[in-house]
Amino acid sequence: MSEIKAALAEQRIETPSWGYGNSGTRFRVFPQPGVPRDPWEKIDDAATVHRFTGVAPTVSLHIPWDAVDDYAALARHAEDRGVAIGAINANVFQDEAYKLGSVANPDPGVRRKAVDHLLDCVEIMDRTGSRDLKLWFADGLNYPGQDDLRARQDRLAEALAETYARLGEGQRLLLEYKLFEPAFYTTDVPDWGTAFAHCLDLGPRAQVVIDTGHHAPGTNIEFIVAFLLRAGRLGAFDFNSRFYADDDLMVGAADPFQLFRIMHEIVRADALTPAAGIAFMLDQCHNIEPKIPAVIRSVLNVQEATAKALLVDAAALAKAQQEGDVLGANAVLMDAYNTDVRPLLAELRADQGLDPDPVAAFHRCGYAARVAAERVGGEQAGWGA
Amino acid sequence: MSEIKAALAEQRIETPSWGYGNSGTRFRVFPQPGVPRDPWEKIDDAATVHRFTGVAPTVSLHIPWDAVDDYAALARHAEDRGVAIGAINANVFQDEAYKLGSVANPDPGVRRKAVDHLLDCVEIMDRTGSRDLKLWFADGLNYPGQDDLRARQDRLAEALAETYARLGEGQRLLLEYKLFEPAFYTTDVPDWGTAFAHCLDLGPRAQVVIDTGHHAPGTNIEFIVAFLLRAGRLGAFDFNSRFYADDDLMVGAADPFQLFRIMHEIVRADALTPAAGIAFMLDQCHNIEPKIPAVIRSVLNVQEATAKALLVDAAALAKAQQEGDVLGANAVLMDAYNTDVRPLLAELRADQGLDPDPVAAFHRCGYAARVAAERVGGEQAGWGA
Amino acid sequence: MSEIKAALAEQRIETPSWGYGNSGTRFRVFPQPGVPRDPWEKIDDAATVHRFTGVAPTVSLHIPWDAVDDYAALARHAEDRGVAIGAINANVFQDEAYKLGSVANPDPGVRRKAVDHLLDCVEIMDRTGSRDLKLWFADGLNYPGQDDLRARQDRLAEALAETYARLGEGQRLLLEYKLFEPAFYTTDVPDWGTAFAHCLDLGPRAQVVIDTGHHAPGTNIEFIVAFLLRAGRLGAFDFNSRFYADDDLMVGAADPFQLFRIMHEIVRADALTPAAGIAFMLDQCHNIEPKIPAVIRSVLNVQEATAKALLVDAAALAKAQQEGDVLGANAVLMDAYNTDVRPLLAELRADQGLDPDPVAAFHRCGYAARVAAERVGGEQAGWGA
Amino acid sequence: MSEIKAALAEQRIETPSWGYGNSGTRFRVFPQPGVPRDPWEKIDDAATVHRFTGVAPTVSLHIPWDAVDDYAALARHAEDRGVAIGAINANVFQDEAYKLGSVANPDPGVRRKAVDHLLDCVEIMDRTGSRDLKLWFADGLNYPGQDDLRARQDRLAEALAETYARLGEGQRLLLEYKLFEPAFYTTDVPDWGTAFAHCLDLGPRAQVVIDTGHHAPGTNIEFIVAFLLRAGRLGAFDFNSRFYADDDLMVGAADPFQLFRIMHEIVRADALTPAAGIAFMLDQCHNIEPKIPAVIRSVLNVQEATAKALLVDAAALAKAQQEGDVLGANAVLMDAYNTDVRPLLAELRADQGLDPDPVAAFHRCGYAARVAAERVGGEQAGWGA
Repeated sequence: MSEIKAALAEQRIETPSWGYGNSGTRFRVFPQPGVPRDPWEKIDDAATVHRFTGVAPTVSLHIPWDAVDDYAALARHAEDRGVAIGAINANVFQDEAYKLGSVANPDPGVRRKAVDHLLDCVEIMDRTGSRDLKLWFADGLNYPGQDDLRARQDRLAEALAETYARLGEGQRLLLEYKLFEPAFYTTDVPDWGTAFAHCLDLGPRAQVVIDTGHHAPGTNIEFIVAFLLRAGRLGAFDFNSRFYADDDLMVGAADPFQLFRIMHEIVRADALTPAAGIAFMLDQCHNIEPKIPAVIRSVLNVQEATAKALLVDAAALAKAQQEGDVLGANAVLMDAYNTDVRPLLAELRADQGLDPDPVAAFHRCGYAARVAAERVGGEQAGWGA
Repeated sequence: MSEIKAALAEQRIETPSWGYGNSGTRFRVFPQPGVPRDPWEKIDDAATVHRFTGVAPTVSLHIPWDAVDDYAALARHAEDRGVAIGAINANVFQDEAYKLGSVANPDPGVRRKAVDHLLDCVEIMDRTGSRDLKLWFADGLNYPGQDDLRARQDRLAEALAETYARLGEGQRLLLEYKLFEPAFYTTDVPDWGTAFAHCLDLGPRAQVVIDTGHHAPGTNIEFIVAFLLRAGRLGAFDFNSRFYADDDLMVGAADPFQLFRIMHEIVRADALTPAAGIAFMLDQCHNIEPKIPAVIRSVLNVQEATAKALLVDAAALAKAQQEGDVLGANAVLMDAYNTDVRPLLAELRADQGLDPDPVAAFHRCGYAARVAAERVGGEQAGWGA
Repeated sequence: MSEIKAALAEQRIETPSWGYGNSGTRFRVFPQPGVPRDPWEKIDDAATVHRFTGVAPTVSLHIPWDAVDDYAALARHAEDRGVAIGAINANVFQDEAYKLGSVANPDPGVRRKAVDHLLDCVEIMDRTGSRDLKLWFADGLNYPGQDDLRARQDRLAEALAETYARLGEGQRLLLEYKLFEPAFYTTDVPDWGTAFAHCLDLGPRAQVVIDTGHHAPGTNIEFIVAFLLRAGRLGAFDFNSRFYADDDLMVGAADPFQLFRIMHEIVRADALTPAAGIAFMLDQCHNIEPKIPAVIRSVLNVQEATAKALLVDAAALAKAQQEGDVLGANAVLMDAYNTDVRPLLAELRADQGLDPDPVAAFHRCGYAARVAAERVGGEQAGWGA
Repeated sequence: MSEIKAALAEQRIETPSWGYGNSGTRFRVFPQPGVPRDPWEKIDDAATVHRFTGVAPTVSLHIPWDAVDDYAALARHAEDRGVAIGAINANVFQDEAYKLGSVANPDPGVRRKAVDHLLDCVEIMDRTGSRDLKLWFADGLNYPGQDDLRARQDRLAEALAETYARLGEGQRLLLEYKLFEPAFYTTDVPDWGTAFAHCLDLGPRAQVVIDTGHHAPGTNIEFIVAFLLRAGRLGAFDFNSRFYADDDLMVGAADPFQLFRIMHEIVRADALTPAAGIAFMLDQCHNIEPKIPAVIRSVLNVQEATAKALLVDAAALAKAQQEGDVLGANAVLMDAYNTDVRPLLAELRADQGLDPDPVAAFHRCGYAARVAAERVGGEQAGWGA
């Protein structure tokens, strides 16, 4: 148990600045009280999550949503609050110019603009000390014939190469894929194979991001995890959960068993430690539930799945697998999954001087009421703001 | 052929006021030049579509997006332009109050507000002469346990009953279903079975709406069409097309063969004529393509699928089916589908004094340039405006 | 806890005779040692499952797979072994005549043959004391146009009506739906709505069967459970689990959280007790794993999900739901799900004089080795045998 | 038009020996009269398809289904009938040993047996003059934990490497992927990315096979086609069509527009000619329809989709794409798709001395009745025989 607790104590989960802002669907964004109005306040919220959970010490930024004049100051602000800047997420999908795509747009002027933004993001990484450039492209087509599938790959490859070349020592390019939305006929990086192939072409510091909500129905995500780990190309997760499309619900809310299976592959490959370089990020939209407790809940869900994965009896599992004992091997996995790990995690938190129940502690602390009172005037942050 | 042309000449397709306004995804709405700023201008656009196609004589309204002070004047404006007001679509999903649902909300005050809006919509039907109240509820849950599935059905049934009771002579309640979005764990009317069951409870003037984008992957839509026609409960279509979720692309753009199969069931049941009471509506979002030509294209797609369905050799089909001739029966259907019906439709249009190529004629007529120049100032219409 | 244990003690799960026989995919059936060679031996296996679990006192038969000369003797054999005959499953899909369908076949002679088989099954119910006639039709089409969708519904309705009329006092007709397979364009009862509509037409003793593997991707099964319970039309479950299609894996193996949510709706509607009339059946194929332990594992999985559902704090849940506390309500549900109920169930079994670990007890008892040795010669039972 | 006809005249479609044998679902195989009893008769049927269509000059074999003592004699038999032996398909899924996998099995003895079979298949290629070794592995897992995902990749890679090393001059290894079935939790080559990565590791003569029925719902297959063509790694197609899973219906029967889009990518990449090295194969199961006419129909469907793809106005398409004219570009594609190409193909056949209507000509020729009369006694070929 002490080894398991040690592994859990070392775990790092990154929360996204935009998860604290207002979000919604195409039908409606329902604003919430106390939502941050700028990146500084988002970081305050992220730091609050870390204060109660102890495992969320970094926060991802989204540019230009989180653009500030002085990034060094923003990094210091984070440090003052006990957290650090994580990945820099480029946004090349909300400018008027990107209606038909960014880096894969048929118009070279638009592509130039998009790549310049990517290069600016690397500049921000330099200033904030961020290691990871996370790239998700909304590029794609709505109608068959709308553009040339192959030419778009050529343009994408060119943009990625220029960006990759700009990376500094110790910086990485993380390429995300997504089956659909906002493009509805095809996207330009629809699946892990496409992201993987581009990363191979780029070089060793290009890695794939798995957003758990970005797959076709029935896709076995833990297979992809295992495959990319074997190939040395898994860079990060964007955790969330879904019943249908890219629903962006709290991770572990829709299929906690799947999350456990994913974490089992991570543990099995010894990829949980920060040294392994996998960034475990959240990417969620809390459309109807209060944001900070939802992020805390999500962090706990990842922690619980991890604890269960650490409980798997690896030797017994390997033995049953080797013997072709189908039911026995499955039972070893299920035994771990069926264990209630909440007492163990409460104990771990107590060891670390944290409240054993982070959600309850947050609710008691008065932070929500305070920011709701303070954060009036100005404009609440949201997608596009 | 003359019978087929006669059937095609009688066809009626309804276009939606909101299809002329700006739309987008949760990531971005890209505005377009010349987009209407109010319901009057939307009706002008709908009338333009009818002028070039000859088969789109009605336009659906969406309340409160299309709320005006004087509905009689709006109806007269439509009539002056050569069209009429079609279905009234209620909107109980964009008000702050509806965050956790409208007619199925646990809060009775919210439910009252929602039902009052539905009753107001019937009032607007009275004033505009509209026959159909079209109801789509965004109600649903994002998380398991969030609310009680069964209690929500009870509340929904109560709201529907009160609304149904308010209908006047010759008015109908059309109930739409949708698998997901904006709710991501469940919706309160997720499938045709749910809508059908509520319609049975309500009475004969309650009918089901099939939105072609609102199904789970793999759902056979023409089966539902055939089943509801047999049960006398098919009220309307919301036509659009999709590759993944509720993509709201132009009807016939993603799977033209499916559209043909749907129209085949309509023709087979003799349900094409206005007398049959099926409302053939479009419900689409032209996020990146110009809206009026996209609506024209959509109308033509429905027309072409209908023409092919009318070409099916019903006697040969029935004979092959009766004989268990699998390949022969399929071939009869495919023969019709593989026929190029564009010459026939061009001929029909020429007979009716229309340009044989409505898209080209629209582009030549200068309407797009004119409205782009005229419609400046004010706020362009869009979802939520 | 004593109430929960009482509820669990009363639970009844029915196992299928064909689950003990060899099964496989279209690619290959891998035979297993000790598989039964006739219905008598299948019943022996079912009785063994009941002996170790205490909650599987009935076994479904499949006709003609389980046809015998003397059904009364078969019922007595079951009784001698401590179990009883459950539902009678009709098979109208394996005879040469049914290539293009059974009750929906265009050929009236084939339909007559199929209906006669259904009537024979009612006869067998009379002789075995079975309450439930379970009907699943493989009827459907592989190609568009192959047959008339509507005419097939008419034929289906006629066959169901004749069968329903033959039911005796206290007998029920249970109608199962399935999205696809073995028909690949459409089936004649593809979804719950179709089954429900036919049941409504038939009368109060016609009820819907939910096979958990028979839905389109993304279908919310617990919604259907809740809806049918509200409508008084849920007759039975065919439990199994799936990742893709109708995979027929062990129930709870693919998505244990979904199984819990289903059982939560059952408990919430007070439909767990035998008095409620819901038949909780397994319908699985143990293609690669040993069959008896797999059935035991499946029974335990249902039991565990039920125990968790019984642990839900209904008052706290209702309060959070009423208050619109999204995270709070979800947390109440998850608290129950995250509880390790295995100790509780072990205790229950000890109370009942059973081994607390049925799988281990079965492995120790020597039954598998004994039947492997004894059941040589003859032909092992399987699908189609 | 003459260029289009020339391109069509050069087209080559390969039919599968097993498509002429009996097939079915796990529920039932319905035998048909006149079905071949051995590989020699299968080749006779394939030659018949070629005689009427003129574009099906090769036939794929499946080993051991098509094992014979003298492969050179079999190749001569084919040559005598006017066709040649195409790809050799290895079968490592039907032997008792492969219950838990073949090349990825945890048991090294089973792996040895499987690899030996693959090497034998290369031997058969040497003897028959076949160029392509087509590998599909049924390997996979039914239950989470059943085996180690990563170790299975290692074993798979090792088996592939040994097989690849055995290839002779001008021989290729074609690796097929499949999402699921017969394994239901994961397969070991579930998607194109996995096949692609293994091919990269193997070398330039390892290429990916796209079976059009082997994807998750919503997968954009033509994107994969375009991507693999760009990467120089598309080796072959297994054409068929599907509504749900791997339904193996006639190609073009479920979604003819998709088939057209696939062929559009082929034409756009100039990959239609035999010189480009893409093998266009059928892989279908004619469960309920007569097999030879179904294969003819399938060949015609591919031909018709190809003809439409050749009709696309490439210059107009490129111009509209470059200008960002979404509707215009889509219209160029749809114009080609909506054209009735059957007269053109009839003309092409007449030019080649073939009957313009191959299906009708086959029905008139008496072949079906003759083989039904002749092929009595012996055992009809089928999956597994």
